[in-house]
Amino acid sequence: MAPVTTTGERMHALVERLYPLCRSITGDGVRATLEIVDEYVPLQVHEVPTGTQVLDWTVPQEWNIRDAYIADASGHRVVDFAASSLHVLGYSVPVSATMPLAELRAHLHTLPDHPSWVPYRTSYYRPEWGFCLAQETLDALPDGEYEVRVDSTLADGHLTYAEHVVPGQVPDEVIVSCHVCHPSLANDNLAGIAVATFLARALAERTPYYTYRFIFAPGTIGAITWLARNRERVDRVKHGLVLACAGDRGHLTYKRSRRGDAEIDRVMRHVLRTSERPHDVIEFTPYGYDERQYCSPGFDLGVGSLSRTPYAGYPEYHTSADDPGFVSPEAMEDTLAVCREAFAVLDRNRRYVNLSPYGEPQLGRRGLYDALGGRSDTQQAQMAMLWVLSLSDGEHGLLDVAERSGLPFDTVAAAADALRDAGLIKA
Amino acid sequence: MAPVTTTGERMHALVERLYPLCRSITGDGVRATLEIVDEYVPLQVHEVPTGTQVLDWTVPQEWNIRDAYIADASGHRVVDFAASSLHVLGYSVPVSATMPLAELRAHLHTLPDHPSWVPYRTSYYRPEWGFCLAQETLDALPDGEYEVRVDSTLADGHLTYAEHVVPGQVPDEVIVSCHVCHPSLANDNLAGIAVATFLARALAERTPYYTYRFIFAPGTIGAITWLARNRERVDRVKHGLVLACAGDRGHLTYKRSRRGDAEIDRVMRHVLRTSERPHDVIEFTPYGYDERQYCSPGFDLGVGSLSRTPYAGYPEYHTSADDPGFVSPEAMEDTLAVCREAFAVLDRNRRYVNLSPYGEPQLGRRGLYDALGGRSDTQQAQMAMLWVLSLSDGEHGLLDVAERSGLPFDTVAAAADALRDAGLIKA
Amino acid sequence: MAPVTTTGERMHALVERLYPLCRSITGDGVRATLEIVDEYVPLQVHEVPTGTQVLDWTVPQEWNIRDAYIADASGHRVVDFAASSLHVLGYSVPVSATMPLAELRAHLHTLPDHPSWVPYRTSYYRPEWGFCLAQETLDALPDGEYEVRVDSTLADGHLTYAEHVVPGQVPDEVIVSCHVCHPSLANDNLAGIAVATFLARALAERTPYYTYRFIFAPGTIGAITWLARNRERVDRVKHGLVLACAGDRGHLTYKRSRRGDAEIDRVMRHVLRTSERPHDVIEFTPYGYDERQYCSPGFDLGVGSLSRTPYAGYPEYHTSADDPGFVSPEAMEDTLAVCREAFAVLDRNRRYVNLSPYGEPQLGRRGLYDALGGRSDTQQAQMAMLWVLSLSDGEHGLLDVAERSGLPFDTVAAAADALRDAGLIKA
Repeated sequence: MAPVTTTGERMHALVERLYPLCRSITGDGVRATLEIVDEYVPLQVHEVPTGTQVLDWTVPQEWNIRDAYIADASGHRVVDFAASSLHVLGYSVPVSATMPLAELRAHLHTLPDHPSWVPYRTSYYRPEWGFCLAQETLDALPDGEYEVRVDSTLADGHLTYAEHVVPGQVPDEVIVSCHVCHPSLANDNLAGIAVATFLARALAERTPYYTYRFIFAPGTIGAITWLARNRERVDRVKHGLVLACAGDRGHLTYKRSRRGDAEIDRVMRHVLRTSERPHDVIEFTPYGYDERQYCSPGFDLGVGSLSRTPYAGYPEYHTSADDPGFVSPEAMEDTLAVCREAFAVLDRNRRYVNLSPYGEPQLGRRGLYDALGGRSDTQQAQMAMLWVLSLSDGEHGLLDVAERSGLPFDTVAAAADALRDAGLIKA
Repeated sequence: MAPVTTTGERMHALVERLYPLCRSITGDGVRATLEIVDEYVPLQVHEVPTGTQVLDWTVPQEWNIRDAYIADASGHRVVDFAASSLHVLGYSVPVSATMPLAELRAHLHTLPDHPSWVPYRTSYYRPEWGFCLAQETLDALPDGEYEVRVDSTLADGHLTYAEHVVPGQVPDEVIVSCHVCHPSLANDNLAGIAVATFLARALAERTPYYTYRFIFAPGTIGAITWLARNRERVDRVKHGLVLACAGDRGHLTYKRSRRGDAEIDRVMRHVLRTSERPHDVIEFTPYGYDERQYCSPGFDLGVGSLSRTPYAGYPEYHTSADDPGFVSPEAMEDTLAVCREAFAVLDRNRRYVNLSPYGEPQLGRRGLYDALGGRSDTQQAQMAMLWVLSLSDGEHGLLDVAERSGLPFDTVAAAADALRDAGLIKA
Repeated sequence: MAPVTTTGERMHALVERLYPLCRSITGDGVRATLEIVDEYVPLQVHEVPTGTQVLDWTVPQEWNIRDAYIADASGHRVVDFAASSLHVLGYSVPVSATMPLAELRAHLHTLPDHPSWVPYRTSYYRPEWGFCLAQETLDALPDGEYEVRVDSTLADGHLTYAEHVVPGQVPDEVIVSCHVCHPSLANDNLAGIAVATFLARALAERTPYYTYRFIFAPGTIGAITWLARNRERVDRVKHGLVLACAGDRGHLTYKRSRRGDAEIDRVMRHVLRTSERPHDVIEFTPYGYDERQYCSPGFDLGVGSLSRTPYAGYPEYHTSADDPGFVSPEAMEDTLAVCREAFAVLDRNRRYVNLSPYGEPQLGRRGLYDALGGRSDTQQAQMAMLWVLSLSDGEHGLLDVAERSGLPFDTVAAAADALRDAGLIKA
């Protein structure tokens, strides 16, 4: 086996480590997941007791499972939780019984259209038990009596989520959120967890402008819990990104925030478009991942969502076919790269005021032509300075300058740095 | 002859009853027309005396006509008002004379391009007499003396118009206006009168949200009179529709209000587009029918105009070829259907406020998933609830929700009803 | 030679007179240019002393030149300023020396891609001397010693610019600005000077609505000087146009003001579009000619720029190939015509208020139908009156009326005149 060398391969190795764990919206599977992530970036883990009121919701009982199987008359396990966490209905209540196949069928979930795949099913808020299996496994089962056993507990406990903060120059925050509640599904959402983890490491390489807060929480109830516990300080969240389905081989898809023209929306569109990657930018819908919560009308945060093939848009979605082979190191590395590019733009997207706004200032006298004279990109750099001066009216940011001028954002930002250093503009 | 069974056929029968009457902007023809309409929906008839100042205008003298003809030397009537009300110039002053054809010609109106059609001509504000006839009739007249006689009166009297009100849940009004001043022209505007009449009956089937006021009035001076007499209460007119040319076989045309984005404009566009009928939506122009008056800049009401082939857009326009055969039961029924669909949307297009706007409310706990679980359109209904919750910020109405979500308006409105009943939103 | 008869030919004759003069940002070449223009339209000439602070800049020393040449060992002038003002580097410091060709080369500028053309080069703010010559001239020079001589002075003096004002009915101003600092280049900007000159004469034919101020000033420093000296009264500049590259055979290009939707932008687009000339309308960039200064964010004037082939968009740009043969009488006449059409629209683009806004006023009673009845454009004229009445709400100007109605601006303006005379609208 080749040594793990690229960041993509390291992310893929993390996916593979996390894959076997049986996660759900509460329980030890989430804790074990966070412990592994903590090896990469230090996490602050929060435990919120069952019964806690969180916005319109209540933290449910904690679910844990040790074993689950269907065994035939000879005691042979024909469906075994040990083989895959998908085999048991998420949040399944305990059961220990023997029943004929005909009776058992009501508790079995298959995918007739994909007879070799095991579906992923849950029943969070309605007490049920059940198993998920391949249609071809079911078809091969002879009639007769089967022993069914789910050795789970559903009891008061906690909901677990974690945060990792990369401190910035200002307390204004960018949140990056990914759901950690799905069991053995690689793209949904181990790839998102892996990209978030390595994104946090990359951002820490030097102090960013914004403070970046990474949220690893179970879907829906976890985001709602985070929002409930941070309601007083949510005003400092200026931008955000939900990461999901971050590793499949499809092209990138950015889903706008509810606002539609939040700064993160403009930044992501700019980066995707100028990078000339194939991509889609789609409108907000109140369905999908936890952008639903962050963008609920009471909060209406500037939070978009980055995926490759979006939510439910691939046949492997919520099936055993979403395994580590379904996600690729290259795709995760590409997702990571776009996040880094976008946050590099976001972080530098200041709004300046031209301090010499009457006519053009004489750049030559300040060495701003000389300073650039020897560079091959002189003309672009000079144009960028003129554009920054022209649009630094307190209304336009550097992203506006880049988009109106057609110049690369980096060139514009460098021009702004030079003008700021010369005292010609201020933020 | 087949029995009259469909609404379209009943509207067409009304057109045929009204067709022979000689209407003008004042006079007994209008009164007789309103008496017939009153058999279908009770009308409040208004009589406004000659000389009354109405906005910038003055109610003119009343015109009535008993007989009119051109007779040849042998006393044979070669042009006879009894055969068609179109034969006399509208508002023709009385005349009784004998003159050679050469002299008579200055008072004759024909359509050389359509030699068998009789044109429709009027001279409301300049005293004249005249006859309209087919070019081929004129061509067949030998030279010689002719007796001409118009037995009309032009005297102080009244301008007549009528209203019918369908009371709603709120005093805010929707006006539906159609002109009643044209003589024997079926599409212009007996079809509009018939559609308005049956629309009023349909709206009364259950109490609508808005109060619907139907205005049957002569063109221009009638609408101006109505506005002059309702100036103090015109603020309660929230929306409106002018119905004209409602029965020909062309596709539907909606002409926007002067505002261009009034709610009625958005509703009509939505209904026409989602119904997948061939149609046109055209911009406002200050020409056409009485939308000119309702949309004059001092009033600027949200009043659009619905036609099939629009104003002057068909060769039969203002000729004897616009006869009952030119309009069809099916076309009138289609116009009526679109009006009903549009008013059903308008009537339900509330703007709600999400009372649980922080995160998504837990729908399952309130039975809002269960309630819908058994229906085949479950997924659309759930999406509709999420969309209504997302956009119920006091700024967006249900039509906005339908347009942004791509969901049918009815589904959205049903979701809003369920959410309102659950106490999650309020109007 | 044919007699000079057309305005285009007269403008071309002016270009030819101005062509030989050696202009720069200061000096006698500018003065001589302005003296010639003054023969056509009287100029107020301003002299601003060296060292005067103008916005962020300082008026530089004045540069004058009497002679410059490179002579070979036999005394033969191989490059001679007398043949073309382009041969000397603009603002060249004096030099008198003998040196081998190898050493001289560092001071020589050519265009290897166009070996027969002489480039135009300057060094305004860095003391240098140099010569510009054809590559083929350079290639033909044998090695050896050459005498070089630039008989120039760089000394305290003045910066010269001029104004010509066409007084209007109101003190609000339209500025027309063209740069006068380039030596023997016809399109850049003698054609602009010629068009501006004849435009001023045309506007004076009858008192315009606006006051039109023509500015003939050296590029950049001249516009900055004008702005610095008029800072207190710049508020009265409502619109403006920079004229440059006005005579080549390409189609017209209008570059929007920084605002992008200033009235001049809308007027120019309207005139270019409705005239059905091939043309381009391009967005503002903070590069080009003196629109850079007028549109700097502190001033942000509604000043656009009209060219034919724009700035640097033709190979002859800033070379000896931009000679009088490069510009044509027809092209200059076309540029002039568009300026006149645009200012005719701008001058009449009033915003009226309908004084009879409730319903349509009765036009017939006021003779407004009669007045137009005999004209072949009756229907357009009537439509124009209805449109003006409809949109005269204090928000829309006559250009809005023309654009929304699709009617010619002249028809709309005539309708407004008639309505104003009838007391139905007021400005």
